[in-house]
Amino acid sequence: MTNPTAAILIIGNEILSGRTKDSNINFLSQNLNKLGIKVGEARIIPDKSDQIIDTVRHLSRNYTYVFTTGGIGATHDDITADCVARAFNRKLEPHPEAIRILTDQYGERLNDVRLRMALIPEGGTLIKNSVSKAPGFQIENVFCLAGIPSVMNAMFESLIGRLNRGAPIFQKTITCSLTENTIADELGSIQKEFPDVEIGSYPFFHTNGNFGISLVLRSINSELLEKSFEKVMALVKNYVDRVEIE
Amino acid sequence: MTNPTAAILIIGNEILSGRTKDSNINFLSQNLNKLGIKVGEARIIPDKSDQIIDTVRHLSRNYTYVFTTGGIGATHDDITADCVARAFNRKLEPHPEAIRILTDQYGERLNDVRLRMALIPEGGTLIKNSVSKAPGFQIENVFCLAGIPSVMNAMFESLIGRLNRGAPIFQKTITCSLTENTIADELGSIQKEFPDVEIGSYPFFHTNGNFGISLVLRSINSELLEKSFEKVMALVKNYVDRVEIE
Repeated sequence: MTNPTAAILIIGNEILSGRTKDSNINFLSQNLNKLGIKVGEARIIPDKSDQIIDTVRHLSRNYTYVFTTGGIGATHDDITADCVARAFNRKLEPHPEAIRILTDQYGERLNDVRLRMALIPEGGTLIKNSVSKAPGFQIENVFCLAGIPSVMNAMFESLIGRLNRGAPIFQKTITCSLTENTIADELGSIQKEFPDVEIGSYPFFHTNGNFGISLVLRSINSELLEKSFEKVMALVKNYVDRVEIE
Repeated sequence: MTNPTAAILIIGNEILSGRTKDSNINFLSQNLNKLGIKVGEARIIPDKSDQIIDTVRHLSRNYTYVFTTGGIGATHDDITADCVARAFNRKLEPHPEAIRILTDQYGERLNDVRLRMALIPEGGTLIKNSVSKAPGFQIENVFCLAGIPSVMNAMFESLIGRLNRGAPIFQKTITCSLTENTIADELGSIQKEFPDVEIGSYPFFHTNGNFGISLVLRSINSELLEKSFEKVMALVKNYVDRVEIE
């Protein structure tokens, strides 16, 4: 059995203009990996209809799940619901439960503008928003979440029950003060010996002059992970005494 | 004349596993926009040959420039140079100037592993690395930079002279304590009146209970920017007195 896969799609000019630093990719990546769902790619695209429609179609066909963030409010630049509807050739229509939620929230202040937030693609289901109430929605394998991190996080928590989990992904990290060139060849041999363990080598330089590498081993097979970990540890210990393990 | 465009391609499993939070997209987006180069999309993909080759080809055809980060070291998971060479049907070959730089840096410690960092696609040119010396490279319209932010930033500074700049993009931001629904319709009308100004509406909720919107106006036409800014200011002032302008 292979693990489910996911793509993350961040929609918003403000990220690509450099004005806003995205934090949703990291949140979703961490949480999807915890569920055994492998993130195959992430994309950030602007508020442009054609690009959103094409990208949603492409990602929806190629991954088990797609998570979009951004563009589900009520202003002119909130075009995600409309584009996702068009990606699946569906109409955009008022969802009765969404209207009820917005009525509870706004009472007499519920006007035509706010009612736009109840428009979701035909056949879609709502995603609960415990922070600011206006819901996200799911259509087929695409989950459309808010762009504001606190709202997005709450929506994600509420939809976890709908996801098929994969085998848990085990991970071990070895950090030490070697340069990666020192062990590159031998590490490459260990990777070849353990094709089902993903071994990553990540050098770092800190501004205080500290440098080193983090070697990250990941696998859904805990036995192979342990065996490869012992080999990498033995390799590293040939060169340095002090090693941090996570 | 239209502004040059760019795509950003972050290569690395560590971002998609959630282990590392990317900061290169924000740095590149900010700096490219300052040069009048519009960022059309950003992608994060894993260390997988086919995906890197296909994505580099696609982005190279669709944008003026492509900036990749990550995967240019000397370990088994550093496959960017090889993949970019294959994307352009070039051979990977030792670059004499890169060998000279690595010889200066490592002296007698220059071994076969380190020499791998001198392999770049045939016909490529080097990108200087003032931090850790091993250079990046440019082939056609693709610039391949290191993944470590301090090294990537230094490489980017050194290649700015090679880029065609676009007309500067002017920007004004109005922040106030309105909810975006209040002004959504009127803001939409202003956007229709000024198609050459990009007007974004970004709500925020802070954990201290503060909420509001930032309205961001962007254009290469400073006169239209100023006119649309006055209209948005007049709209906002109908509802609130206190407004912050950036």
